[in-house]
Amino acid sequence: MKKKNKKVNAAILIIGNEILSGRTQDKNTIFISQWLNSSCGIIVEEVRIIPDVEKIIIENIKKLSQKFNYVFTTGGIGPTHDDITAKSIAKAFHIEYGFHKEAYKILESYYGKKNFNDGRKKMAKMPILAKLIYNPSSAAPGFMTKNVISLPGVPSILNSMIENCKKYLIRGLKIHSETLNLYTVESNISKKLNIIQNKYKKEVNIGSYPFFRLGKIGVSIVTRSTSKIKLQEVNKHLKKLAKIKKIKILKA
Amino acid sequence: MKKKNKKVNAAILIIGNEILSGRTQDKNTIFISQWLNSSCGIIVEEVRIIPDVEKIIIENIKKLSQKFNYVFTTGGIGPTHDDITAKSIAKAFHIEYGFHKEAYKILESYYGKKNFNDGRKKMAKMPILAKLIYNPSSAAPGFMTKNVISLPGVPSILNSMIENCKKYLIRGLKIHSETLNLYTVESNISKKLNIIQNKYKKEVNIGSYPFFRLGKIGVSIVTRSTSKIKLQEVNKHLKKLAKIKKIKILKA
Repeated sequence: MKKKNKKVNAAILIIGNEILSGRTQDKNTIFISQWLNSSCGIIVEEVRIIPDVEKIIIENIKKLSQKFNYVFTTGGIGPTHDDITAKSIAKAFHIEYGFHKEAYKILESYYGKKNFNDGRKKMAKMPILAKLIYNPSSAAPGFMTKNVISLPGVPSILNSMIENCKKYLIRGLKIHSETLNLYTVESNISKKLNIIQNKYKKEVNIGSYPFFRLGKIGVSIVTRSTSKIKLQEVNKHLKKLAKIKKIKILKA
Repeated sequence: MKKKNKKVNAAILIIGNEILSGRTQDKNTIFISQWLNSSCGIIVEEVRIIPDVEKIIIENIKKLSQKFNYVFTTGGIGPTHDDITAKSIAKAFHIEYGFHKEAYKILESYYGKKNFNDGRKKMAKMPILAKLIYNPSSAAPGFMTKNVISLPGVPSILNSMIENCKKYLIRGLKIHSETLNLYTVESNISKKLNIIQNKYKKEVNIGSYPFFRLGKIGVSIVTRSTSKIKLQEVNKHLKKLAKIKKIKILKA
């Protein structure tokens, strides 16, 4: 994995009617975001969930692949009629779609020649020059087309493949993060928090999230930065604020 | 709630760095989608997750409010510096932002004059002519600006408010849905499924989703349509297909 001494970003494109209709809870966003963050120093800056409609997939692939360093798609690479991600990506980039030689071999040897039916063969169809992402759980590979990485929608299979994406990615600056849990309400600290955020506007991102734990109300202050020193400075300010306001800090 | 004899659609715009970074699992998409679907006959056709950045919020509000009948935003309406949804929406539509008289009264009487500090007052700031969405759990109201409905990010609070959106929405055609769970693999039925889908292309949407249950592999075939009759026809075809292929149907 190459290193790049600056910010590297990504978008996630969740393809699937079942997520939009509320039938299925999306679990891939949180998994991919956390992995990109902690393993690659890559920040996810946008997520979109869209239906299995070719025109819409093409539009979004074009838009997001121009706007971000990487795009991760999930879903739509299986054997059924609603699996149209591979074809749509080929169309978006005007590149050849057909049997990918290596993917075909992998699947043929996995299923055996006799059981390698049309549905299974479909999973070897993709942009023919795509880079493969090997799948240790169920053989059918993911693939990378330009800066777009396509993974399956089933979380357990996706999770098993994610490390195999790493060799294709350029690593960004590591993002450090701290969380301070305070037993208070947001409105009690919002003014001072704003002052601290303004002082470190460019270096540190401060998020404020209410929580309810064991019947008590509190606020998690999450700070994120590529600079460990600035992060520590901000957290010193936050602890001082808690002391002045006599706010109890919850040990994690 | 008025009725409309055609398709009504919506987008969801999740605003929050904590979802993008993978710190927090989004639970609002599935809740809002299911509710819109079952209670209002409204179909969610796109979801976007974006950071707490004014420019990006404005861009997305403009785009999505033009494209869909309704936009539901979640997050960014609390008292802290990172809560910028209300102001961004006012800017997107070039309308006046300030204290909403009724919202101010609600919050003042909830907290009491003495405890109604600047942070809490901020929650009464929004497009001044917005329609309010009452909040039975923590008083701070959501609001509707043109076709954009803004709700809080905390799922328990959002869930408690959702019924109060109903009076502002036009009901679309009810979407009927059936699920058939088959003990088979996708590639075994993909060809025939494709034929059935093509026959009912315009009337019925067929989705195919692998499942793993009690150590067994199966496929859920989800059919959705505004026509109950066409839905039944398709399910008859599917059951016939299962019979011919000697596939066991799992009773739900």
